[in-house]
Amino acid sequence: MSEFALIGALVERLGGGPADEVPLGPGDDAAIVTIGGTAVAVTVDAMVDAVHFDRALSSAADVGWKLVAVNVSDLAAIGARPIAAVVALHLPDGSEREWVLELADGVAEAAGGWGVRVVGGDVVSATELAVSMTLLGEVPAGAPLTRAGARAGDALVLIGETGLAGAGLALAQAGEDDLLAEHPELLAAHRRPVARITAGRALAEVGAHAAIDTSDGLGQDAGHVAEASAVGIVIREAAVPMHPGVRAAEARLGRDGLALHGGEDLALLATVDPADVGTLRQRMADLGEPFAVIGEVRPGSGVSLLRCDGTTVDASRHGYEHGRTNGGGRT
Amino acid sequence: MSEFALIGALVERLGGGPADEVPLGPGDDAAIVTIGGTAVAVTVDAMVDAVHFDRALSSAADVGWKLVAVNVSDLAAIGARPIAAVVALHLPDGSEREWVLELADGVAEAAGGWGVRVVGGDVVSATELAVSMTLLGEVPAGAPLTRAGARAGDALVLIGETGLAGAGLALAQAGEDDLLAEHPELLAAHRRPVARITAGRALAEVGAHAAIDTSDGLGQDAGHVAEASAVGIVIREAAVPMHPGVRAAEARLGRDGLALHGGEDLALLATVDPADVGTLRQRMADLGEPFAVIGEVRPGSGVSLLRCDGTTVDASRHGYEHGRTNGGGRT
Repeated sequence: MSEFALIGALVERLGGGPADEVPLGPGDDAAIVTIGGTAVAVTVDAMVDAVHFDRALSSAADVGWKLVAVNVSDLAAIGARPIAAVVALHLPDGSEREWVLELADGVAEAAGGWGVRVVGGDVVSATELAVSMTLLGEVPAGAPLTRAGARAGDALVLIGETGLAGAGLALAQAGEDDLLAEHPELLAAHRRPVARITAGRALAEVGAHAAIDTSDGLGQDAGHVAEASAVGIVIREAAVPMHPGVRAAEARLGRDGLALHGGEDLALLATVDPADVGTLRQRMADLGEPFAVIGEVRPGSGVSLLRCDGTTVDASRHGYEHGRTNGGGRT
Repeated sequence: MSEFALIGALVERLGGGPADEVPLGPGDDAAIVTIGGTAVAVTVDAMVDAVHFDRALSSAADVGWKLVAVNVSDLAAIGARPIAAVVALHLPDGSEREWVLELADGVAEAAGGWGVRVVGGDVVSATELAVSMTLLGEVPAGAPLTRAGARAGDALVLIGETGLAGAGLALAQAGEDDLLAEHPELLAAHRRPVARITAGRALAEVGAHAAIDTSDGLGQDAGHVAEASAVGIVIREAAVPMHPGVRAAEARLGRDGLALHGGEDLALLATVDPADVGTLRQRMADLGEPFAVIGEVRPGSGVSLLRCDGTTVDASRHGYEHGRTNGGGRT
C-alpha cells in the first residue's frame, strides 16, 4: 500500500474535510480550525531515527533545528505565522541525557529564531528514538494559500533553490567528502534547512493563487498542486535554478534530477497571476530570496517537464515517498 | 535519569514558562497560548506499541479510542472544550492496512463522541508502531483550572473512580480471566477510558481552585497539585471510593494500593472551597458522575495518606513513571 493511498483511506475514515469550524482540512501543508471565532493554523511533522535523520550525519541539535524548520515551512506554505509548538519525544531506555538536551537546544535555537514558543510536550518510553512537533500559528489577511487555487494561465514561481538537501545527503552516503567540503551549503541544507516564513507571507500579500513547500521534491509537490487544483503544470527544465553544488553532485554521482526530485528542500513553489510576477520578484529581491519563474499552469492535469532538448516527460512521478532519511506524507 | 528530572531539564532548555502570549506554559495537563487574541488550549499525548498498549489486550480501535480519550481528559482537567486534533502515525513497513484503518475508526468514534475534528496528520515510516495526538480546544469563562491554585482549607474532591484501569491490566497480565469476566468494567477502563469533559467544565463553572486528571495515579497526581500549589494534601483512605472489582483484584493479586497508584484512570481530582462542595455534589449527581470528598488541603507540602488504622504514610511516592503499558509524563 503506498503512503498516499493509505493517507487517503485514513482521511476518509477520520471524516476530515472542510466544515464551518474547519476552513482548511486535511490535504494541505497545514490545516486551519476556528477556535473561539479565531482561525488557527496547525501542522504536525514527525521524525524517526534512521528514517528522517542519521545520527552519524546530524547532531542532536541539527535534528531539533530541522524539526522546527519543517513545521515552520508548512505554515509558510499557507502564508501563516508560527506562534507556539508542542513536542512529543519517544525515548529509548538508556538514551544519553546529553543527546536529548542538545536536541532541546536545537529546538530552542530554531524556535527562538522564528518566534515560536515551545509550550508543552510529552516524553514517552520507546524502543525507537523519534520526535514530533505540532506547530500552531496565526492566519493573517490574505492567507491561507492552499494547494487548490492554481488557475490556468498562472505563472509557476520558485522561491529558493532545490536539490541541495538531496545532494548533500547523497554525497554523504557515497562518502564524497571532498565535494561536500567544496560546497558546504549542501550538507547544511540537509542538516539545517531554512524555512521561508517571510516569503510565504509575501506570497499571501501579493495574492498568490496556490502555494506549497518542496519537502517532497519539486516535481512531486508540483503534482500535489496540479491534482488539488485540477490543472496541468508545465515546468521548463532550463528555468529551474541549478545550484553549482547540485550540478557537481549530479556529475559526481552519475545521476540527474536532484533539483527536481531531491526532496527535503524548504523552497516555496507558488502559482501567481503573471501580472503580479514583477511585484513578487521585487519583494523577493528585497528579502534576498532566490526567485525564478520556472513554468506555467495550463488546463489539463499532471506535471510535464519541458526538457532542454524539446522533449516532454512526466515530472511528478519520481519524487520520494517516505524512504530512509526522507520525510513522510501529511494527511 | 528519572522522567520528571529529564522533563524539568528539557523545559529549562526550551525556555518555556508563562509570557504574554503563553498564559499557561509547560507543567500542567495542557498549555494555553494566545493566537490572534484568542486563548487556545493545547495538549499532546503519545502512545507506543508494547509500552502504552498491548495488541494482545487492545484492538486497534481501542488504541485509537484511548489516544483521543487521554488527550480530551487533559483538556477536561483545565476546564477547556476540545475542538480539533492532528495525529502523527509512526508505521513500520509491512503494517497491516486493516489494523491501521481500524485504529482510525477508533479515533473517529471517540473524536465524534467528544465533538473533536481530526484535521490533519503526518504518517511516517518507522520500526516501532507509535501514534500521537495533539488536541486543541477553547478556553471558556472560568477556565483554565491549573495544578497551581490549591489553597489551604480546600476540600479535595474526586470525580470518578480510580484503580479500574490498573486492576484490569494487572489481572489480564496475570491471566485472571474469571475475575475480568466478573468485572468487565476493569478491562474496559484500560481499553476505553472515558474522559470527563462536562465534569471539567462544571469544576470551572463552580470555581474550583485546582484540578488534574489521575492519569499518573491518584497519589502521584495529588503530589503534582501539592508541588505546583506549594501546599500539603491529606487523603483519607477510608474516603477513597473502592470499586468492588478493584477490591477483588487487590485480594486476588495480593497487592493493595491500586485505587491510589493504579494510573491511567481519567478521573478528575480537584480542590474546591468547602462552601462549594454542595453545589458541586449536586452538579455531579445531575451528570451521573461518582463524586467524593476524599481529603483536604493544608499548609505544608507533600501528600499524606491517613490510613484506616490511624497511621499516616507518604502517598505521592508510589505512582508509576512511564513503565511498560503505562503513560509517560508531560512537560
